[in-house]
Amino acid sequence: MSKKKLPSRTEDYNDWYNTVVMRADLADYGPARGTMIVKPYGWTLWENMQQALDRRFKDTGHVNAGFPMFIPKSFIDREASHVEGFSPELAVVTIGGGKQLEEPLVVRPTSETIIGHTYSKWIKSYRDLPVLINLWNSVVRWELRTKLFLRTLEFWWQEGHTAHATYEEAQEETLQMLEVYIDFARNEAAIAPFYGRKSNSEKFPGADVTYSIEAMMGDKKALQAGTSHNLGQNFAKAFDIQYLDNNNEMQYCWTTSWGLSTRFIGAMIMTHGDDQGIIMPPRLAPHQVVLIPIHKDDGQKSIVMETVDRISTELLDHDIRVHIDDREGFTPGHKFNYWELRGVPLRMEIGPKDVANQSVTLARRDIVGKEGKNIVSQENITSKVSDLLIVIQDSLLERAIKFRDGNTCEPRDYDHFKEIVADGFALAWWCGEDTCEIAIKSDTKATSRCIPDIDLPVKGGACIYCGKMSKDKAYFAKSY
Amino acid sequence: MSKKKLPSRTEDYNDWYNTVVMRADLADYGPARGTMIVKPYGWTLWENMQQALDRRFKDTGHVNAGFPMFIPKSFIDREASHVEGFSPELAVVTIGGGKQLEEPLVVRPTSETIIGHTYSKWIKSYRDLPVLINLWNSVVRWELRTKLFLRTLEFWWQEGHTAHATYEEAQEETLQMLEVYIDFARNEAAIAPFYGRKSNSEKFPGADVTYSIEAMMGDKKALQAGTSHNLGQNFAKAFDIQYLDNNNEMQYCWTTSWGLSTRFIGAMIMTHGDDQGIIMPPRLAPHQVVLIPIHKDDGQKSIVMETVDRISTELLDHDIRVHIDDREGFTPGHKFNYWELRGVPLRMEIGPKDVANQSVTLARRDIVGKEGKNIVSQENITSKVSDLLIVIQDSLLERAIKFRDGNTCEPRDYDHFKEIVADGFALAWWCGEDTCEIAIKSDTKATSRCIPDIDLPVKGGACIYCGKMSKDKAYFAKSY
Repeated sequence: MSKKKLPSRTEDYNDWYNTVVMRADLADYGPARGTMIVKPYGWTLWENMQQALDRRFKDTGHVNAGFPMFIPKSFIDREASHVEGFSPELAVVTIGGGKQLEEPLVVRPTSETIIGHTYSKWIKSYRDLPVLINLWNSVVRWELRTKLFLRTLEFWWQEGHTAHATYEEAQEETLQMLEVYIDFARNEAAIAPFYGRKSNSEKFPGADVTYSIEAMMGDKKALQAGTSHNLGQNFAKAFDIQYLDNNNEMQYCWTTSWGLSTRFIGAMIMTHGDDQGIIMPPRLAPHQVVLIPIHKDDGQKSIVMETVDRISTELLDHDIRVHIDDREGFTPGHKFNYWELRGVPLRMEIGPKDVANQSVTLARRDIVGKEGKNIVSQENITSKVSDLLIVIQDSLLERAIKFRDGNTCEPRDYDHFKEIVADGFALAWWCGEDTCEIAIKSDTKATSRCIPDIDLPVKGGACIYCGKMSKDKAYFAKSY
Repeated sequence: MSKKKLPSRTEDYNDWYNTVVMRADLADYGPARGTMIVKPYGWTLWENMQQALDRRFKDTGHVNAGFPMFIPKSFIDREASHVEGFSPELAVVTIGGGKQLEEPLVVRPTSETIIGHTYSKWIKSYRDLPVLINLWNSVVRWELRTKLFLRTLEFWWQEGHTAHATYEEAQEETLQMLEVYIDFARNEAAIAPFYGRKSNSEKFPGADVTYSIEAMMGDKKALQAGTSHNLGQNFAKAFDIQYLDNNNEMQYCWTTSWGLSTRFIGAMIMTHGDDQGIIMPPRLAPHQVVLIPIHKDDGQKSIVMETVDRISTELLDHDIRVHIDDREGFTPGHKFNYWELRGVPLRMEIGPKDVANQSVTLARRDIVGKEGKNIVSQENITSKVSDLLIVIQDSLLERAIKFRDGNTCEPRDYDHFKEIVADGFALAWWCGEDTCEIAIKSDTKATSRCIPDIDLPVKGGACIYCGKMSKDKAYFAKSY
C-alpha cells in the first residue's frame, strides 16, 4: 500500500473515489481499454451481495438459468426502441474459428432479445405461465468514459426476465422486484434510495415503464442503483411470445426485466465512505471484524495469540466473518490504517494488557477516533460483537437517510431549484415533457431521476420550468 | 413433455443422451450455432455443483475474483504452445462501439494470458506469494461439432490460477486440486474416475504436466471431467511474472491452473442414467425428493394435502430438497414417468390409504420397478428419507465403480488390446511416444486417457504397441 495520504472528499471527490477503489484492492483496470478486474476483496463483497439478492429472488419464486453471451446481430434490430438504445454500444464478433462469420454475433448488452426468442419457443399455453427466470452474468456496453464499478466496458449483474399472462401480473412483478431492490438496499447495504418511475427520456429503451432506485452519493449526486422494467408487449410482439389462453385463443405475453449490477458497489463506496476510506456495511462486508494481535516479543506473542485464536474461533463458530491480521513486519498503526481504508466495520485489538485484564479493545469504523474506541471485557464477546455490528449497520443507514434528507429540498421557484440541484436533490412539480427536461439539463446539468408514487398534500402544481399545471413531482439531480 | 418413448441406451446411445438432456429440461441450443442455454433445472444442478466445489476451494485457501472476458489478441500469441492450441478456436471481436478496433479482442478461451499479464503487475516480492485465485465464468471455443454439455461454443466452468515461489509448491498445488476434483467426483457426484498424468499430445497447450480425471460413461467411452495443470515457468516467462526473493534476487514464479466445467453434467448423465432417463446423485440433485399427492376427489384431496404439507415442511426444515408435484390434469403415472426421466432420487407417494395407515410409499430411482418401492410408516420420516438418500448415493457410487472395473482390462497383447478398447478401457504398458499413440488411434480410435501414478507389481513392461521397455502403464479408451 502506498503511504501517500488519501485525497479528501471535499478536495477532489473523483480522485478520492478512484484512489480508494484501487488502494483498497477492490478493483483494477484490465488490459483491454475500459475493462475491469474485480479483485478478490471486491469479488467477495459481490458474492455477499449476490447471496443476499439471490435469496430474495428465490423467496419470490424465481429460478436461475444460463443463457449464451452471443446474440445474432439481427435480434438486436428487431425491437425498434431497443436497437436505437443499444446499437452504438455493441461489441461485435465477426471472426469465429478463423473464418469471417456470415452473421456477426453481438456480445450481449442485455438479454431481452435472446430471452424473447427463447420464450417464444418455450411458452405454448397459459399453463406455462408465469416464467420467472433470473440470470447472473456479465454484459458488455462500449463505454468511452469509464470509471471502476460505475461505468466499464464489461460489468457483472443479474438480469431477471419474466413472462406473464396479463398486464396486471407483469405490473405486480415489476413493482415487487423494485421492492426487493429497495429492501436489499436498506437492509443489506444500509442505503436508503429514493425510488419511482423514470421519465420518458431516462427509461430503458423497449420498456413501457421503468422504475429505479436512486441513491444520493457523498458529493450529493444521484446514482441509479437498480431498475425494474414493465416491458408491456413490446418484446412479446417483436419476438412472437404467444400463448393459448384458457379460451383457446392466442394471446401475446406481458414481460418484465429487472437488474442490479456491480455498479451498486460504487453506490456503497460513495454513500458510506469517509476521508479514511471505505466503510463496509456489516451485513455485506467481506470481513466483519479484523482482529489485530499486538505484541513486542515472542513471549508476548504466544500469550496474545492464544487469546486471539480462542476469540476468533468463537466468533467464526457464530458465523461472524473475522480476519486475523498477524502479518509480520508491519506496525499495529499501519494495520489500523490498512483496514480503515478497506472499511472493515469493527477492529478488535488484543495486546498483553488485554490478556491480563481479560479485555479487548473494539474500534468502530463508522466513528473515527477515540469516541469509536472501547475497552470491553472478554465475557460474552460474541454477543457483544454481533450486537455492535447491528448498531453499526443501523447507524450507517440512519446517517445515510439523514444526509439524503438534509440535502433534498422542494424549490420555491426555478432560481431556488437551480441553487438546490447545484449541490443536492430537488423534489419539484414537473409536467413530464422532454422539452422541459432538456432545458433544465442544459441550465443545470441535472436531470429527472425518478417520479415517486407519493401522496401529495395538494392535487397538482406548476411545473418548475414551464409553469404548466402538473400532477407529479420528480426528483432532479446531477447524476453518475 | 413428448409422449414418445425414450430411445434405449443399447439401441442408440447418442440419441438416448440427446433426447434425455432435452426432454429432462436440462439444456437447449441457443440461437447462435453451437451455443447452449442451460435451463433452470440444469442450472440448479450446476449451482449445487458450484457450491460443493467452491467450499472445497475456499477450504484449501483460495479466493474468487472476476476477470474480463476480452483479451487483447496479442496476448494469445505470446506463449508459443498456447497460441498453437487455441488460435483455431477463437471468437474475435473486431468492432466496438460502431468502430473497427485497432487491436482485435479475443473472447477468452481460458484466462492464463490475461492472468499472466495481471499477476506480473500484482506480484513484486516473495511476500505476495502464493496467489491463489479462482474464477467462475464462461469461456468460448469455436467448436464445429457440438453436443449439449459435452462440447459447446460457450461453456461455464471454474478456472483456478495460482502463482508460487517454487516448483515444489506449484506441483503440490497441482496435485492438491486434482485431489479436490477426485473427492468432488466421488463424494458429491458418485463418480469414481481414473486419474493421472496426460500424455504429451493430450496435455494442455502451455502446461509442463497436465493431470486429469477420466470417467467411464455408460457406453464405456471415457470422458475427461476435470484437469489440473502444472504450468512450470512457461507463462511466467511469457508474461514476466517475477518476484524478488528473500535474497533480493529476481526469480520467475511457478504457476498452475485447474478447471472443471458444465461438461461434468454430461459425465453424471452418462454415468448414472438408465433407459428411464437421468439419475441424479442425491447430494447434487435439484430436487432430492418429489412428493406426489394421489387423490380422486376434493374430499380426498384436502385430507391428502394436509399430510403432504406437514411432511414436506418437516423435510424442508431438515434441509432436504423436496418438491411437491401438485399439478392438476396429470395422472400419477404421468408424474412418475416425468420425474423418473428427470432423475429425482426418491419419489414419495401419499394417497388416502397412506393417510389412513399413517404410511407413505417410497420409490427409489436407482432401483426401477417393485424392488425399489417400499411402504413405510410416517414415524421418523425425515431420518428415514435422509438415510435412504445416503443409501442411494452410496449405491450409485458402488455401481459406477463396479461398471468401471468390470470394463477395464489389462491386455495380454495388441490383439487383445484392440478387443478391449472396442468396448472398454485398457490399462497397458506404454512407452509414451507420440508415434505409438497415433498408430493406436488410427487402428482403434482409442487414445491414452491418463497415466496413473500407481504401484506396479513389476518394474516395467513391453509397450503394448512397439514392444519397447516402458516404465508406465496408461489407460486407453475411446473418448468424448
